[in-house]
Amino acid sequence: MSLVVVGSVAYDGVETPHGRVERMLGGAATYISLAASYFTKTSIVAVVGDDFAKEDTQLLLDHGVNLDGLERVPGKTFFWAGKYTPDMNDRETLVTELNVFANFQPKLPPSYKGAQYLLLGNIQPSLQRDVLKQLTNLRLAGGDTMNYWIKDHREELLKTIRDWDFLLINDHEARMLSGETNLKRAARAILDMGPHTLIIKRGEYGAMLFRKDSFFIVPGYLLEEVFDPTGAGDSFAGGFIGYLAQQGFDLEADHISRGELSRAVIYGSVMGSFCCECFGVDRFRILERSEIDARFEEFRKFTSF
Amino acid sequence: MSLVVVGSVAYDGVETPHGRVERMLGGAATYISLAASYFTKTSIVAVVGDDFAKEDTQLLLDHGVNLDGLERVPGKTFFWAGKYTPDMNDRETLVTELNVFANFQPKLPPSYKGAQYLLLGNIQPSLQRDVLKQLTNLRLAGGDTMNYWIKDHREELLKTIRDWDFLLINDHEARMLSGETNLKRAARAILDMGPHTLIIKRGEYGAMLFRKDSFFIVPGYLLEEVFDPTGAGDSFAGGFIGYLAQQGFDLEADHISRGELSRAVIYGSVMGSFCCECFGVDRFRILERSEIDARFEEFRKFTSF
Repeated sequence: MSLVVVGSVAYDGVETPHGRVERMLGGAATYISLAASYFTKTSIVAVVGDDFAKEDTQLLLDHGVNLDGLERVPGKTFFWAGKYTPDMNDRETLVTELNVFANFQPKLPPSYKGAQYLLLGNIQPSLQRDVLKQLTNLRLAGGDTMNYWIKDHREELLKTIRDWDFLLINDHEARMLSGETNLKRAARAILDMGPHTLIIKRGEYGAMLFRKDSFFIVPGYLLEEVFDPTGAGDSFAGGFIGYLAQQGFDLEADHISRGELSRAVIYGSVMGSFCCECFGVDRFRILERSEIDARFEEFRKFTSF
Repeated sequence: MSLVVVGSVAYDGVETPHGRVERMLGGAATYISLAASYFTKTSIVAVVGDDFAKEDTQLLLDHGVNLDGLERVPGKTFFWAGKYTPDMNDRETLVTELNVFANFQPKLPPSYKGAQYLLLGNIQPSLQRDVLKQLTNLRLAGGDTMNYWIKDHREELLKTIRDWDFLLINDHEARMLSGETNLKRAARAILDMGPHTLIIKRGEYGAMLFRKDSFFIVPGYLLEEVFDPTGAGDSFAGGFIGYLAQQGFDLEADHISRGELSRAVIYGSVMGSFCCECFGVDRFRILERSEIDARFEEFRKFTSF
């Protein structure tokens, strides 16, 4: 079934202990849609400048991503640069140049209107709300946010996520949003804000899924070498929603099993782990669907008892 | 089958965000043997001073722990005091008074000599080696260590663990011992040091088990309130070895399944999680075997997909 992904398409400069790349394709919508493209028909809503390279458009097209909603405007594409700490669990932002992204007003082309699945990458909550309103055939909608919106635009954010089926954030954001240090209590508080499903990403420690009546926890995949964690959380989101869209389930409390949701979390973890194996989106240039399913089975093997 | 536990029996002073206890029963051998006592016949080798309280002896006896090897000498019992950080992932040692523990020379009473299982709590590696030599009927032996021995007594430690079946340490210690930041590579390096099985404890993030040909990872149990993490790692060790001793397996590479070892890691995790629910050993005063098995099933439920 058809998935719409909204968010940033960007260029990133990244430095990790394994090296440094001055400028490479990045952005939440890029990672989400590349990861989701292995599972389902994916359409992107984003904006780029006139410096956006043909080969970067081509990579998305090669993955079957629909770019009808990728607006191209005069100016420069969003640029972000950051440097990771030696253990790669944290990073410092060195440069944020919003450029054409500063005036991003997501416009959905007519061909997107029938989409049943929606993943709202981390952008201004009021824009996320606008997009949600434009899609009237949705079976499942949710997204991501970040500390900036939680801290400085709390009311707007709460108004936005109230209508989401799922919220997908990391552990720091869950603590900040709920005001609870303990993740079990944080989850309970967040599920009272609207979403019936909460996914908490914990980086190398894995992920958790919470619903009112149950929860699921999976450890992180044990990589021997983390080259670049940039985009891992977005790749997780793409795998999660992509798998659910492929299965054709909807998330209404009564219509989906904990099992399906858990498997979606595993596919999310699989895509996040692949993302870390190369710089930027490089792993997705060569990744095959058979590798994804093989790693899913690895998860089963190393977590079974 | 019969298990011998060697280590400290102590009094602890502990401060956590939930409160402060000036003096309570503690020590590695105490936690290990209390946890193991739910699974198997457990005998302790330790030393206490003449201040050791009758009710503390009684708690161990009530759990069926054999105290033939609990030496009582003139002087004061080992005392440790510490204060936890607000998130309880770290602690500061405030007081360490070795007292009678400074001259501890583990002596095994004749009644222990036939023991088939041995858990060496964190003490001086040469003493751990002496104990191992005294037991000639062992099917399975291993233990714990700490940063002090890894850093300042490395050669002695390496000579000691060479003869162990399993080593049970935390992630910081695994990194320090191996010189590798990545846990997968750290595990490979440690398995080359002798033990055929390595268990890495990761606190709230769970635990990992490594063998040459396979590994197993389990996330931590999600407690709503961590009262006091003191002794959680030792309780884990007690649950792990206790379960294996109860099952009667031996760990020789060809004679035990990954499944049995994984279930031992789950029982370890279960006992560690119970330990955190109250101050000190208090949870073990009231804990029932049926609660342990119920929590084991909870682990199955929240990790299955």
